[in-house]
Amino acid sequence: MSIEVVMTGTGSTKYGPSERSPADLAQLAVKDALEEADLRPGDIDGFVLSTQNSDILQKQGNPVLRFAEFLGLDVKFGTRTEAACVAGTTALKTGHMAVESKTVENCLVLGVEKCNELPSNTEVVSAFAFINERDFEAQLGANAMWHFAPYAVRHMHEFGTTEEQLAEVRAKNSRFSTKNPKAHFQKEVTVDDVLESPIVCKPLKLFDCCPISDGASAAILTTGENAKEQVDVPIYAKGYGQGMIPADVVSSIPDHSEFTALKKAARRAYEDAGIGPEDVDVVETHDCFTIAELLEMEALGFVEKGGGGKFIEEGQSDLGGEVPTNTSGGLLCRGHPIGATGICQATLIAEQLRNEAPKGRQVDGAELGINQNLGGPATNQAVFIWERR
Amino acid sequence: MSIEVVMTGTGSTKYGPSERSPADLAQLAVKDALEEADLRPGDIDGFVLSTQNSDILQKQGNPVLRFAEFLGLDVKFGTRTEAACVAGTTALKTGHMAVESKTVENCLVLGVEKCNELPSNTEVVSAFAFINERDFEAQLGANAMWHFAPYAVRHMHEFGTTEEQLAEVRAKNSRFSTKNPKAHFQKEVTVDDVLESPIVCKPLKLFDCCPISDGASAAILTTGENAKEQVDVPIYAKGYGQGMIPADVVSSIPDHSEFTALKKAARRAYEDAGIGPEDVDVVETHDCFTIAELLEMEALGFVEKGGGGKFIEEGQSDLGGEVPTNTSGGLLCRGHPIGATGICQATLIAEQLRNEAPKGRQVDGAELGINQNLGGPATNQAVFIWERR
Repeated sequence: MSIEVVMTGTGSTKYGPSERSPADLAQLAVKDALEEADLRPGDIDGFVLSTQNSDILQKQGNPVLRFAEFLGLDVKFGTRTEAACVAGTTALKTGHMAVESKTVENCLVLGVEKCNELPSNTEVVSAFAFINERDFEAQLGANAMWHFAPYAVRHMHEFGTTEEQLAEVRAKNSRFSTKNPKAHFQKEVTVDDVLESPIVCKPLKLFDCCPISDGASAAILTTGENAKEQVDVPIYAKGYGQGMIPADVVSSIPDHSEFTALKKAARRAYEDAGIGPEDVDVVETHDCFTIAELLEMEALGFVEKGGGGKFIEEGQSDLGGEVPTNTSGGLLCRGHPIGATGICQATLIAEQLRNEAPKGRQVDGAELGINQNLGGPATNQAVFIWERR
Repeated sequence: MSIEVVMTGTGSTKYGPSERSPADLAQLAVKDALEEADLRPGDIDGFVLSTQNSDILQKQGNPVLRFAEFLGLDVKFGTRTEAACVAGTTALKTGHMAVESKTVENCLVLGVEKCNELPSNTEVVSAFAFINERDFEAQLGANAMWHFAPYAVRHMHEFGTTEEQLAEVRAKNSRFSTKNPKAHFQKEVTVDDVLESPIVCKPLKLFDCCPISDGASAAILTTGENAKEQVDVPIYAKGYGQGMIPADVVSSIPDHSEFTALKKAARRAYEDAGIGPEDVDVVETHDCFTIAELLEMEALGFVEKGGGGKFIEEGQSDLGGEVPTNTSGGLLCRGHPIGATGICQATLIAEQLRNEAPKGRQVDGAELGINQNLGGPATNQAVFIWERR
């Protein structure tokens, strides 16, 4: 009889530039997660830490030992995971496996990132270049915009997708963000605001891009048995899929008209869960750029290839549509503290499935949700499926 | 019925300063591991990468996607682990959980490190300071010698341990290293050589310290079922234990007379495996300094606290003794490419349990072995128990 794994406690700090240290941010998120699950630090026997930039921005390797000390943990399994922007979800999966394999009972999965350590965003973006392939791309100034703009160009060319359709992603997510007091940005922007914002990397404009955020998010994973004592509404881990394609630089991506790695990850996750895209009630996706959310709608199977622009235009990803998407504001508005993002997404899905999201963001009767997270030039993708029972 | 996890393919490069890139080193180790298990890259569906310093020394984050590309892998689960010098064993455990939880069938666990990227050892040691706690220790020039010398001072003070006994650890391991063509150093040194070598951090001398090595090691973990088709002598994962104490800087370590975290890790591992120290035939331990091996004999329960010096002096950790230890030459002579070390240790235990170590290193009839790995100031410890059946 295999162990069922459940998300119980959840917690997040407000996202956005912060004066707090990574350890401070972590404490805040973990305190909330422990309280929600009615646990103390001594009850935690597994610890997976997701943080991307501590070596470079904090000049601090080996954070897992340090954070365990700060948090008062004595664990039977503990490690840090790192996989660029998808690390939060690989951390969740690592914690999931730790519980499922009976290595631990209560696993804290914590994502922490403090990106605003340098005087300007430009300097932070330069520092982030170390995530890119070194010998060709990083030297040339490669960055995330460089990786994602070609997807937009290609989709517009092949399917007639418009800049207005891309802008609608940000407009929708910004409307949700006004109801999320933890979001980095909480201001509504219109399609025209997006179109009039400065070009960053054609056709992506400033408001097509997510910000550089600080923040921490935490989730506690436990056994189905323990969960009964921890929370009223247990959220079950129902399926996981990851997919990579062998492409780390823009020139080796075989097809910019789709997220090929996500199609793989989604197929594997649906198979693992025994469900299909039609069963999904709510999703948090990795909308680091507006074009990303559009391609995610297609790769997750909510609309056919090429139909993403129309899907969004018709409001199918909005509340009341086919699959309400990024009702937290998404990376575009909620923010993107790199290693924390995947974990935050999962906690937001839990909030939805527990019917605890505020009015204007709650999806009525949501029972099954997905968090989808990506790393690198969208070529390493992970999908986690969660269910209320 | 729970899945049994087996180590099949194993591979390591020669350790020591190398002109090869991390990717090159990885290819060599992985090629050997795949051949040993009679697998191709396409058979691998899980990938855990352990590398410590790529962000700092190679200016390269997100190595997991890049290495998957180089190696031609298409995996259902993949991440990097980082936990300083113990990362190799947390990677093994992550791969173990991936197989045990049926997430994947054949998991490649790969450790790669290229430390010799800077003009001098002094510069490399300075770069490594980022692993140490930043606000107090790293600024003061903390390094591994600073962390381990107090253990030696304390043990000598409390139990009368001598510099000669410490030197005997290096002398023993150097004798083994002359029979290991992959070792960083392969030259026999005597107790007198050690005692006459320059002081590094009193009482530790140059030959009491392990070198700075490049290298890669790989292990393939699979199900008991698959293992039958891959190798003649399957090596079963029998137990795992990890232990931390809340101490990241030298001044917060409560007791320098022992490895308290290892006592915890060992207790948990023995419990998980249902065995005791008396059942262990051979061990590879984390002898980053001579004093470490001595304290490991005690914390692993092979000799009572305080008895480590005499145990070594009597040859109990040598071939023919109670528990032959570091028959590969250990970190002291084999070398210590940080993220690779734990994985290398496990492959060396597999070699022993398969009765494939060369004469002069093989422990006759060894059936059960341990690899023990530590991180930080010895306050994060992991023990993996392996068995031939």
